[in-house]
Amino acid sequence: MAHRLLLGPGPSNVPARVLTALAQPLLGHLDPAFLAIVEEVQERLRGLFGTRNPLTIPLSATGSGGMEACFVNLVEPGDPVVVGVAGVFGERMCDVAARLGARVARVESEPGTVLDPGAMADAIARTRPALVAFVHAETSTGACQPVQAIASAARDAGALVVLDCVTSLGGLRVALDAWGVDAAYSATQKCLSTPPGLAPASFGPRALERLAARRAPVPSWYFDLNLLGGYFGERRVYHHTAPVGAIAGLAEALRLIDEEGMPARALRHREAAERLVAGLGRLGFEPLVAQEYRLPMLTSVRLPARVQAAGEAALRRQLLERHEIEIGGGLGKLAGRIWRIGLMGENARPAVVDRLLEALGVVLGGAGGS
Amino acid sequence: MAHRLLLGPGPSNVPARVLTALAQPLLGHLDPAFLAIVEEVQERLRGLFGTRNPLTIPLSATGSGGMEACFVNLVEPGDPVVVGVAGVFGERMCDVAARLGARVARVESEPGTVLDPGAMADAIARTRPALVAFVHAETSTGACQPVQAIASAARDAGALVVLDCVTSLGGLRVALDAWGVDAAYSATQKCLSTPPGLAPASFGPRALERLAARRAPVPSWYFDLNLLGGYFGERRVYHHTAPVGAIAGLAEALRLIDEEGMPARALRHREAAERLVAGLGRLGFEPLVAQEYRLPMLTSVRLPARVQAAGEAALRRQLLERHEIEIGGGLGKLAGRIWRIGLMGENARPAVVDRLLEALGVVLGGAGGS
Repeated sequence: MAHRLLLGPGPSNVPARVLTALAQPLLGHLDPAFLAIVEEVQERLRGLFGTRNPLTIPLSATGSGGMEACFVNLVEPGDPVVVGVAGVFGERMCDVAARLGARVARVESEPGTVLDPGAMADAIARTRPALVAFVHAETSTGACQPVQAIASAARDAGALVVLDCVTSLGGLRVALDAWGVDAAYSATQKCLSTPPGLAPASFGPRALERLAARRAPVPSWYFDLNLLGGYFGERRVYHHTAPVGAIAGLAEALRLIDEEGMPARALRHREAAERLVAGLGRLGFEPLVAQEYRLPMLTSVRLPARVQAAGEAALRRQLLERHEIEIGGGLGKLAGRIWRIGLMGENARPAVVDRLLEALGVVLGGAGGS
Repeated sequence: MAHRLLLGPGPSNVPARVLTALAQPLLGHLDPAFLAIVEEVQERLRGLFGTRNPLTIPLSATGSGGMEACFVNLVEPGDPVVVGVAGVFGERMCDVAARLGARVARVESEPGTVLDPGAMADAIARTRPALVAFVHAETSTGACQPVQAIASAARDAGALVVLDCVTSLGGLRVALDAWGVDAAYSATQKCLSTPPGLAPASFGPRALERLAARRAPVPSWYFDLNLLGGYFGERRVYHHTAPVGAIAGLAEALRLIDEEGMPARALRHREAAERLVAGLGRLGFEPLVAQEYRLPMLTSVRLPARVQAAGEAALRRQLLERHEIEIGGGLGKLAGRIWRIGLMGENARPAVVDRLLEALGVVLGGAGGS
């Protein structure tokens, strides 16, 4: 069986303690012993999201399902919505919202740059949106968006703020309550270093007010927060069968994160990224994103001429097949133009960076010397 | 850590080989080594579903998400839909369909009985539905519905047939193509004995024609089969990050099933259920469902007076806390009136039945002697 070092945009490698937790016998989804684990997960997720929101839960879907859950509960047909599009995942928000009948106003930034809070504020003033949504850590570019400025402008205009924390949670400080974010979602397979399949998400009081004031029922039964709140609240009412094994795995991952502490973990991510950028620079790769906006857990680099000449996909395949290292290619407009290297959670370590740089040196040596 | 014998309506216990598979290091979701596992899972699922449908896939959600995926793709606002309601899960189908704007005609049967194909045919003739949906193995009652007669009536009227196979798949023969079922879904935590979190599902040519002819986009991005078909087809286009670990676990579970062979597995389920019903009879429990419609993997029994007197929930709690055995209570209209005992997948074995009967004897002894 292949044993890959996963340095793409996710999934990342899973620590042994989490793998062991995933191999434990299951508990029933209404077993008091399991419900204690659910409570623990909810409380640890609150810490990580920086919120006191009671409805902070692991949704039974991947991160994209978390995105869908936010829009399906908080948007109604005809609602004006402003979406910040700084890459593929902002683009996806527009698609999700439009399918639900929202009137979507897009504010775009060039891939690799960040959203302009002024342009967002203008769009908000112009469209008086019910909801403003954007991505904290844009996984398709490696750029970190200015959350606070945009969230303030949105709240000042009475709009709900929805934030994608898929790639940021567990690698960067997230502070929903301090930032004024009303709903947020993440994924397990990035900086939480847990297999994909759950979407940690959090919904604040203003989001729940909006939900209660809906004119029409939530169109999705599966993601309806009214029903999910029954299971993830005090009554513990059956909705769907919770993914008990995955949640037990997530609990162990969150314990590991709390043992390390988020400040130390964020620092570890930043230092690993700096080491990576320096090493990649020596190999001729330039970062796509300006230093001040660069994400620590995902580094995107432009491809030097010799990589383009050798075929970037062929080089990535060599890295995978000969060195057991996965890195990511570009997505959307950046396909074929960049590489995306993730140092997420477990993998944000100097030894991992050095192993990648050494293997890259070998692969690039075959592609024309360094 | 508690080590439960899971004899409720699911999850069931997971065999050691599957737990071991779940503890293996992850592969990336676009890694050729992982895509080979995906192909294997798709092919084994086709065998289990009794279909040649290319679009036979593990959806990234629990079984209830599989239900939602069927309706969200195949129903449009205003569509007449006939739903057979023989318990809680048929009821859920009505809720899911109504949220999507379908005009739902319900055909009900008393809980514990099965749908009347004649009544279904009448409703189909009266409403000319776009789609007819019902549940194969109703998990809330333990009754097996007459699939072929209903599916024929639906197809004769030009309606799509959607079948819930959540509890049947892997414990009873399923034959979508022979039965004329156009779309079906299941769950991993019942007779596949894999943790909850995936919904195996299959979509046939008539379902895909309906999808292609939609007037409006699929309202759900996450469950849109047009997009899912890109990843689970030849192009392997990224949609969302597939739950790679869970799919590797499912692959191992499906290998185990194929090693045993479905006929032997179905027989094992039937024999275990007969042993259980006989033993429960000696303890004073009568089956809710008439013999010819009884499911093998889920037995529901009425509660004798001494169980009612002692408090059925208190007795189940004793069984859980003192004997580490979980069984299920009644759901919906049957809450407090029945117990539901699952012998699903791994647990459909005589030794498991005997362990339960012995423990039940002890618990009931404390509740007034047998």
